Amino acid sequence: MNKPTIKHALPVTREEDFAQWYQAVIAEAELAEESGVRGCMVIKPWGYGIWERIQKLMDEQIKAAGVENCYFPLFIPLSYFAKEADHVEGFAKEMAVVTHHRLIADPKGGLVPDPEAKLEEPLVVRPTSETVIGAAMARWVQSWRDLPLLTNQWANVVRWEMRTRMFLRTSEFLWQEGHTAHADEADAMAETLRALEMYRAFAEGPLALPVIAGPKPENERFPGAVATYSIEAMMQDGKALQAGTSHYLGTGFAEAAGIRYQDKEGQQTLCHTTSWGVSTRMIGGVIMTHGDDDGLRTPPQVAPQQIVILPMLRDNDGDAALLAYCETLRAELAKLSAFGERVRVLLDKRPGKATQKRWAWVKKGVPLILEIGGRDAEGGQVSVLRRDRLWNDAGKANFTGMAQGEFVAMASAELEDIERSLYTEARARRDAQIERGVSDLAGLSTYFAEDRKFPGWVEMQWSRPTGAALDRVVEQLKALKLTIRNTPLDAAPVDGTCPFTGEPAVERILVARAY
Amino acid sequence: MNKPTIKHALPVTREEDFAQWYQAVIAEAELAEESGVRGCMVIKPWGYGIWERIQKLMDEQIKAAGVENCYFPLFIPLSYFAKEADHVEGFAKEMAVVTHHRLIADPKGGLVPDPEAKLEEPLVVRPTSETVIGAAMARWVQSWRDLPLLTNQWANVVRWEMRTRMFLRTSEFLWQEGHTAHADEADAMAETLRALEMYRAFAEGPLALPVIAGPKPENERFPGAVATYSIEAMMQDGKALQAGTSHYLGTGFAEAAGIRYQDKEGQQTLCHTTSWGVSTRMIGGVIMTHGDDDGLRTPPQVAPQQIVILPMLRDNDGDAALLAYCETLRAELAKLSAFGERVRVLLDKRPGKATQKRWAWVKKGVPLILEIGGRDAEGGQVSVLRRDRLWNDAGKANFTGMAQGEFVAMASAELEDIERSLYTEARARRDAQIERGVSDLAGLSTYFAEDRKFPGWVEMQWSRPTGAALDRVVEQLKALKLTIRNTPLDAAPVDGTCPFTGEPAVERILVARAY
Ligand SMILES: [Zn+2]
Ligand SMILES: [Zn+2]
Repeated sequence: MNKPTIKHALPVTREEDFAQWYQAVIAEAELAEESGVRGCMVIKPWGYGIWERIQKLMDEQIKAAGVENCYFPLFIPLSYFAKEADHVEGFAKEMAVVTHHRLIADPKGGLVPDPEAKLEEPLVVRPTSETVIGAAMARWVQSWRDLPLLTNQWANVVRWEMRTRMFLRTSEFLWQEGHTAHADEADAMAETLRALEMYRAFAEGPLALPVIAGPKPENERFPGAVATYSIEAMMQDGKALQAGTSHYLGTGFAEAAGIRYQDKEGQQTLCHTTSWGVSTRMIGGVIMTHGDDDGLRTPPQVAPQQIVILPMLRDNDGDAALLAYCETLRAELAKLSAFGERVRVLLDKRPGKATQKRWAWVKKGVPLILEIGGRDAEGGQVSVLRRDRLWNDAGKANFTGMAQGEFVAMASAELEDIERSLYTEARARRDAQIERGVSDLAGLSTYFAEDRKFPGWVEMQWSRPTGAALDRVVEQLKALKLTIRNTPLDAAPVDGTCPFTGEPAVERILVARAY
Repeated sequence: MNKPTIKHALPVTREEDFAQWYQAVIAEAELAEESGVRGCMVIKPWGYGIWERIQKLMDEQIKAAGVENCYFPLFIPLSYFAKEADHVEGFAKEMAVVTHHRLIADPKGGLVPDPEAKLEEPLVVRPTSETVIGAAMARWVQSWRDLPLLTNQWANVVRWEMRTRMFLRTSEFLWQEGHTAHADEADAMAETLRALEMYRAFAEGPLALPVIAGPKPENERFPGAVATYSIEAMMQDGKALQAGTSHYLGTGFAEAAGIRYQDKEGQQTLCHTTSWGVSTRMIGGVIMTHGDDDGLRTPPQVAPQQIVILPMLRDNDGDAALLAYCETLRAELAKLSAFGERVRVLLDKRPGKATQKRWAWVKKGVPLILEIGGRDAEGGQVSVLRRDRLWNDAGKANFTGMAQGEFVAMASAELEDIERSLYTEARARRDAQIERGVSDLAGLSTYFAEDRKFPGWVEMQWSRPTGAALDRVVEQLKALKLTIRNTPLDAAPVDGTCPFTGEPAVERILVARAY
């Protein structure tokens, strides 16, 4: 059978240039754009709508776990960071620093920071809120009755990044940061793992992203954390994306912030704390997992619109009847539920050619597109396009005609099937790209050779070295541009030797290139 | 009849010291607290929960109007402000300015901004997003088909305030800012008034805040606006609070930002733009309108919890049956709807004395409190306290006993009645405090004399002077610490003479002290 030549909607394919393709999806799906402010993006309605859906669904999970949302200040005094050297040694040196609180006109007619309005103590724009939330927890926690203290914040944070990429690494990004304080290690660790499981289930459900959950190696921990867990997703170029993290912080942060409680025996005791977060980065993961050469395929639960109805208007007398038919259909569909929520359906009546509008929605990745012409309206028909099955064997847009009632009866199940299909496809691709037959450095080097396209991940056994021995491993991997992602919680038992130390292996790790 | 002495829950009453009382409500209802960062507050779960409710309900209205949410950068390059002198002449001089992007250790062991990491162009933390959104609109609007362009953003903004007061005036606050572009004045003005009416209905509905909507006088307009409309609410101390604004910006902002479209005849034409916003300030208005000497009375639609069930636990064998009874009751109530949404009900099982917990909820202002003892559970009874009718004639907490089924049957209506009662009470108080018998400056001076407590507002007629004549009026009012709030849209016709100019009056205005 001859494969027909398909004229794809994007100017560049994944195969041709994955990085360019990623930017093309963001532009053509109207997810975001450069703002003119270094490293900061404008998130456009379709991209922000996906974030709103992520927020809504995740926030329900957070609230269901008894966690309460708060809001903490954007600015953090410099002294808070000085107190906590760990933090600053880690990621937090590249930060936006506010030094003045007023502008004045300069002699050249422009504006400059007013030298008279220099702050006595500079303020840092929060890169994370550990320090201010720690200070609040120290005020709020008095007795064992106040524990566990479960807080979360949805906020913007800023980390001054030298190389930025939209959604994946931006100077400003949006996230949620959970911060909790507990009476003991067991309770704190249970919360750490609860958040991790919440993220895993969220990624594998509403985002249709297969992920592997597990602890990160010592060198990849959040600065000051006792244990850091992540969920790792494989992008279509084989690279790993850390899509969420959960940290058990021990008593170190509580000690720095003075978070103590009076226990039932009247003793002042340090709390054990956790923190956990996901960000707009998740949207980057969705793009690089579900996008294709025609744009994004938005998973139905996070799609701002799940079904779009496109009337094929002709600027003539028939339009009124066509629109009336479409409006009735819209109202029918809007009564349906999928995933336990009302179906989101849009009747797109904007001016413009129907085929142009179709391709705009294809690129945005709305799960189901209905095109309705005058004859469909007369015959009670609809013409249905599933975004995840866009092309037919003849290389044409894969529309299926059916009776309106038939479509209404199946629409909810169809949306749920699209989510399942996206997950299954991504899962099969990922599983096929995890190599388990590599057992030494030479093998790694060969597997990740520069001329190999989209190589995937290697799962290998190791002895979990620490300190200087771990540093050597990290250096060896770095030379191959590789990192250790995590130790899968559900990995098979070990039976081998560590290729780095020659000692008996104690666990399996994932080694990969990463975003 | 002797009035019983009531022991109120707050340490200070409104009568004793309104400003202190306001702070006491915020502290005792656990709405917010000082953060340790100048002018920035920590919004605690109950306060943030109210904001989440405001966001949810307002966002539904915004989306229903076809407005799409986006997200724009926190930072704005200095040059954007230099372009727009109007803005800077207005409110925007006091701004947080980012000048460095890295910290380094200083010789004394602290941290300082790295002199090597000075930004070439300082960045301003957004005081409002007019300029960046204008730049985006200039990119997004090409043809008449792109209009109207209706965008909104939920965000934090920063205005460096010298004197701050929680919720009312903080350096950082949370808000929404709608920004729209239109083909002509009529369409832009219709949007301006739509947003104003959305705010009026929102204030008078979910917030139970009576407000007066109308245009502000020329001197109170947003810098650069052609017309500014506000909703004005009267606080219990008689002062006015501007609770929301909507601006018709003419073509001035479009010209500065280059927002032009090709009209149907192919001509490049300037857009007419609008902007409109409400902020966390609304919560200050709710406190000062509905608070009493026992704390907040939270309007049911924005109360994070509408009904709290307090089991009177005794640490004995009876507790299990009592909790089971309360849980069944909770589940029954959670199935109810009020205001078109599920009722929010919490079973408060935390350790602690039931009366302490009762007063904590009274201070937070949960609309309905149920106390359930072992005997209530056995007899299928509940004991109900309506927060807006807290005290009985004997000066005791005004609990009413009734059968569980009876309460479940009436709970939704009761919540709706509480909202109505709060509104009616506030409306009657406000209407009684609008004085219409003052017709000259001497009268104003007498009415607002220093020894008069909580004087309310004066509605008077004037000739709407402009320019220097208006400046004189503003100065005369300023000497009495008064401002013109707005021209009520639904004011009575005029029939008099302007006390400021002696000319025939053309409209009525509200004159008041204000927050
Ligand atoms: Zn820290
Ligand atoms: Zn401006």
